[in-house]
Amino acid sequence: MDQTLLPKETVFLRLTTVEQLVEAIQRLAVRGAPALGVAGALGVALAARQHADDEARAQAVHLVETARPTAVNLARGARRAAALLPSFDAVLEEALRVRDEEIASSAEMGRRGADLVQELCGPGVRLLTHCNTGGLATVVEGTALAVVFELHRRGALAGVIASETRPLLQGARLTTWELGRAGVPHRLAVDSAGPFLMARGEVDAVILGADRICANGDVVNKVGSYAHALGAAAAGIPFICVAPESTVDPDTPSGDKVEIEDRGSAEVVGTTAPEGTSAVNPAFDVTPASLVTAIVTEQRVWRPARPR
Amino acid sequence: MDQTLLPKETVFLRLTTVEQLVEAIQRLAVRGAPALGVAGALGVALAARQHADDEARAQAVHLVETARPTAVNLARGARRAAALLPSFDAVLEEALRVRDEEIASSAEMGRRGADLVQELCGPGVRLLTHCNTGGLATVVEGTALAVVFELHRRGALAGVIASETRPLLQGARLTTWELGRAGVPHRLAVDSAGPFLMARGEVDAVILGADRICANGDVVNKVGSYAHALGAAAAGIPFICVAPESTVDPDTPSGDKVEIEDRGSAEVVGTTAPEGTSAVNPAFDVTPASLVTAIVTEQRVWRPARPR
Repeated sequence: MDQTLLPKETVFLRLTTVEQLVEAIQRLAVRGAPALGVAGALGVALAARQHADDEARAQAVHLVETARPTAVNLARGARRAAALLPSFDAVLEEALRVRDEEIASSAEMGRRGADLVQELCGPGVRLLTHCNTGGLATVVEGTALAVVFELHRRGALAGVIASETRPLLQGARLTTWELGRAGVPHRLAVDSAGPFLMARGEVDAVILGADRICANGDVVNKVGSYAHALGAAAAGIPFICVAPESTVDPDTPSGDKVEIEDRGSAEVVGTTAPEGTSAVNPAFDVTPASLVTAIVTEQRVWRPARPR
Repeated sequence: MDQTLLPKETVFLRLTTVEQLVEAIQRLAVRGAPALGVAGALGVALAARQHADDEARAQAVHLVETARPTAVNLARGARRAAALLPSFDAVLEEALRVRDEEIASSAEMGRRGADLVQELCGPGVRLLTHCNTGGLATVVEGTALAVVFELHRRGALAGVIASETRPLLQGARLTTWELGRAGVPHRLAVDSAGPFLMARGEVDAVILGADRICANGDVVNKVGSYAHALGAAAAGIPFICVAPESTVDPDTPSGDKVEIEDRGSAEVVGTTAPEGTSAVNPAFDVTPASLVTAIVTEQRVWRPARPR
């Protein structure tokens, strides 16, 4: 589904070449860490089918792996499938296994995360979430939104504030769309209102995803996550990150080692600022582990802020 | 000037009735605390000219005073002019005096603020500002932007990051326009990037205005100010508020006593979210005095966070 057209249009893309897939990844038609893992693995299957020549195939695999530098899942999904090259059948089978594992992992994150939120916040919880972490970002229910959906099914959720997530408005366009389809009570807010709504006592916990989790528990996620973490810490409410184990990158010791993609001026300047205005546009930010109450994966609840 | 049309069009409004003025204030064609003070006083002059009847005139004055509940300057400007009713000439003279005082006060804030920033940050300072606090919000140079312009004239400014200020994008539309006209190097950023840019060491100080300053030093300003204050505190950089003395409200002991206007869903939901989405949309937030390094007025530099 081309996520750039939501919520106005539901258009499915049929991507039959590596080049088409890379283009779709780069313009965020396909996005979300787990979905990118699946896309990376399927991209290698496309490369296997497209290229009989070893060198051309290796180049195509490299294109897939490096389509977005911050997304560790993309490269990992691609490398996992690439281990079975040159057999197209074996690569495809592995790519579909990556997909099935993501589906099972969503369900497990939903259960673990809902248990934790109920334990920390009690019943009738009011959550704030950032960016989009639902089925669109993964394969089915998602990461942080899987927890939201599970809490809603348990009758334990009072409502969700979705922050709009400038510049690309994934919260306003996608999260509201997914919450609305699932019948979850929700309201939209500008990103910068989050910390104040927390200070005013309107939020019981912040729950969001991760693009990369460093070995020390630093969380790299959509820009704005760090501001929400500061708000949560100041308000004394939990800041919970939900992401598959595959998002944890043991090779990155801490957040200051992560290259943060600047996506250029155009998507910030848009049509509102005077012509010629330039922007600083970090796509992600780093929330230090000290501000992270818990990281929920399909295997564990990790509390990096807790003194050992 | 109708600020809702900038930066695309420069349209001057000729407001000849109280009703036209109130409508212009409510749809933010006229905005900014000091400009609202002048508008309030001039609104009373309109009321004096429009109504010979005491009761009708008093009603019109009340309309002006209450056009926006959070803006203390509006009511104060109106009341100051209203003290000279029913004489139209005396009211108009007082309203023009309010205007002239704002112009002189801008110049004084610029000098005091620039001195402070140079003292705290040294040369080549990189500032981040929020919302619009320039001549559009006042009469000439503004409040926080008066400091920016003064530092630029002194050759002490490396550049400014303007945060876009959702939902109405006063930073993206107005601040960039004013900075561009004055030749000040600047870049635009989404609001939620501010705290991260501070953490990454790209900002030496945050400088912004205030809609109301409470007796204890709590600052009520455009939503997002509080998030920037948290970011500044975490990064260990100054958070400076520049506003005329008239913004200080001795009758409001602290920020929790201030009614925060919710401006409704439409301006957040816009055309991006699915139809029927509702929003929580506080127009302002409260930055506690403990996070405010200094409040610069035309008369003093007040450091509410400093222990007594």
